[in-house]
Amino acid sequence: MSCKASLLTIGDELLIGQVLNSNAQWMSERLTEIGWEVTAHLTVGDREDSIRDAVSFLLKSSDALLIGGGLGPTHDDITLEVLSRFFKVPLEMDQEWLGTLEQFFRSRNREMTENNRKQAFLLKGATRIDNDCGTAAGQFLEEGKTSVFVMPGVPHEMKSMMERFVLPNLGSKSLASGERILKTTLLTTGVGESALASRLDPFVRKVASIPSMTLAFLPSLTTVRLRLQMRCRTPEEEAFFAEMTSELQSACGEDYFGREPGSIDALVITRLRELNRTLALAESCTGGLVTHRLTQIPGASKVLRGAIIPYQEELKQSELGIPGALLESRGVVSGETARAMAEGVRRKWGTDYGLATTGYLGPTGGDPFAPVGTVWIALAHAGGTVAREYRYENHRERNKERAAQSAIDCLRRNLQAGP
Amino acid sequence: MSCKASLLTIGDELLIGQVLNSNAQWMSERLTEIGWEVTAHLTVGDREDSIRDAVSFLLKSSDALLIGGGLGPTHDDITLEVLSRFFKVPLEMDQEWLGTLEQFFRSRNREMTENNRKQAFLLKGATRIDNDCGTAAGQFLEEGKTSVFVMPGVPHEMKSMMERFVLPNLGSKSLASGERILKTTLLTTGVGESALASRLDPFVRKVASIPSMTLAFLPSLTTVRLRLQMRCRTPEEEAFFAEMTSELQSACGEDYFGREPGSIDALVITRLRELNRTLALAESCTGGLVTHRLTQIPGASKVLRGAIIPYQEELKQSELGIPGALLESRGVVSGETARAMAEGVRRKWGTDYGLATTGYLGPTGGDPFAPVGTVWIALAHAGGTVAREYRYENHRERNKERAAQSAIDCLRRNLQAGP
Repeated sequence: MSCKASLLTIGDELLIGQVLNSNAQWMSERLTEIGWEVTAHLTVGDREDSIRDAVSFLLKSSDALLIGGGLGPTHDDITLEVLSRFFKVPLEMDQEWLGTLEQFFRSRNREMTENNRKQAFLLKGATRIDNDCGTAAGQFLEEGKTSVFVMPGVPHEMKSMMERFVLPNLGSKSLASGERILKTTLLTTGVGESALASRLDPFVRKVASIPSMTLAFLPSLTTVRLRLQMRCRTPEEEAFFAEMTSELQSACGEDYFGREPGSIDALVITRLRELNRTLALAESCTGGLVTHRLTQIPGASKVLRGAIIPYQEELKQSELGIPGALLESRGVVSGETARAMAEGVRRKWGTDYGLATTGYLGPTGGDPFAPVGTVWIALAHAGGTVAREYRYENHRERNKERAAQSAIDCLRRNLQAGP
Repeated sequence: MSCKASLLTIGDELLIGQVLNSNAQWMSERLTEIGWEVTAHLTVGDREDSIRDAVSFLLKSSDALLIGGGLGPTHDDITLEVLSRFFKVPLEMDQEWLGTLEQFFRSRNREMTENNRKQAFLLKGATRIDNDCGTAAGQFLEEGKTSVFVMPGVPHEMKSMMERFVLPNLGSKSLASGERILKTTLLTTGVGESALASRLDPFVRKVASIPSMTLAFLPSLTTVRLRLQMRCRTPEEEAFFAEMTSELQSACGEDYFGREPGSIDALVITRLRELNRTLALAESCTGGLVTHRLTQIPGASKVLRGAIIPYQEELKQSELGIPGALLESRGVVSGETARAMAEGVRRKWGTDYGLATTGYLGPTGGDPFAPVGTVWIALAHAGGTVAREYRYENHRERNKERAAQSAIDCLRRNLQAGP
């Protein structure tokens, strides 16, 4: 069958630019994964004529229509009334959901108003989609050849309904009996999209020859994600998908660091914990961003002793014991200084690793040794100290983000190199 | 005249969920500001039938139609060809823009291909909108009663065309002769939306009685923005707007910290520089986020000496001189510890200010003195040391963001209190 889906979002707050429609992106990504083609995103305000025109327009070309928003308890939430008139289907009180709502308000000691009771109405003949984290139920009905789903606009409520009800329902239509879509997203860093694409060229050609398989390159400033996907029916096909995933991982070499939903920050903390090793940071140009990222991970305090951010030059001397003569002869942004910082903080706090950053991020700065955009990263450990230079453009925020990623990646490569 | 605008975005990358449509939010906000009502956002793929259906649907109800995307040099960029057939207007080579493109490629030593020449075509009768940062020109034409604008999807190219051409053009239609819209956005922090709304109730009522004026509350996790806007014709009205802005600022009290496009981080750095005062940080629970935010501001190195992040308890003792007995008797998350940290780092590095954070952000942690979600902030300076406790929920990332904001705000209040 044809599997074309469209998304209708209802809400004035989107049309005045107060809210960003991130739901549409998330839903599109998930629908695409299960073999549906999303043909339109349409957003209109909380007005009867706009909603009617929108539904009528989208129904023409959609096998599935996913409607979000306007299910709240207030007077401007009119989605259900409008759909009731448009589809010529009455609204009926769902006694079971009313009971759930009454219980919800009782347990929170809140009064249930007439407006709240409104949320217990269902379109006649519709299947209720339970809301496990809010009061507005979702609804599913077949309208002619189109499957219509109505969900709240609140992101986590919508996502929960999608996972529990909508995606399984639609997946059963896009996939042949016994077929399922396997998907994995490999994460790489330290390599640009075009360099990676050249390296993976033989693999890309191989994938192109397999009709049931796709590979997408998803680049960002510091990471290239590789999404590999395949429609499988048999255990042999599933084994083949696993083989291809391993092959892709090998082809990425050491630039591969993990799979979604993992992150390089979580990986580094987990690996340090597994190896029972400790880390100290000396961040100059990254100004705390590396430590901030690593301390987002629960349990970081088990392995991360702390950080020093010697933002002014004298602190590099007083706190990390870097000789003033070195700073003068080599410059504060240099491999020698980065090494001395990494070794200094490691020695100072007796950790297994010392990781350091120093650089000129811009817009001003630079010296005869290093122009704006120069960053040095160093990692000190029992096996010695490594330092590496990066040359970026003159863009302070991007440079900081890149430098922080390079620092974390430097440690990651050492940790993944083996026990 | 009626001023209804709709936005059409063209691009497969949005429908597969690879790209988030942030353009639509930005454009909607700007159009709303100049008195236009945005009635629809529609996104479709790079296919002739989809684009035709979309344009035809939106034209019906729009006085202005803003089309973005599909102007690139590759074969799947078909927006102009489709519009040419749909509007029955031929495409014509714009010799002047072709010259600009040739110059563009020459100056970069890049070859100009036949595909690139495609970008020099204009719809016959359309006005060219110059692109000052890319190769795809924008176009403006009147189609029946609707003003149609065609722009690239690249955000900074679109924004530049909006500012230079589209907004002035549309503003001249929504505004009466001599009328202009004044707008200012006041920034507050440290107060919730509902508490602020109660406090501002008399002001809100006053605004409600002035038809040409609007006030919007725009809350986020750590800030409530207040957007005040007025249609003005006369110098007296402009003076009245300025008065109302001052009145709103006064009503916000010390929770007001500045106006857009300012930020609390930039304000703190600027104020420290003006007063020629220095700052040192001791961040425990915020793990570098405060320092990261402040070092995003160019020139931070003039006043921010550095930071210490004593993530493990022993470092609080060894680096900041906090007695082990204090940590034991009062707890590591306590007002006493926060004070000792702020005073310790101020003394250690001889700065005017010492700012410290300590807390349990979750998901685990907590002790008999302080449950998960407790954060203490302290600020030490020549006039003494202040400390304040915050109780948040159990949500690590939100807590870190709130704690960092509270710390910066603590310093901001001291800096704004006077010289």
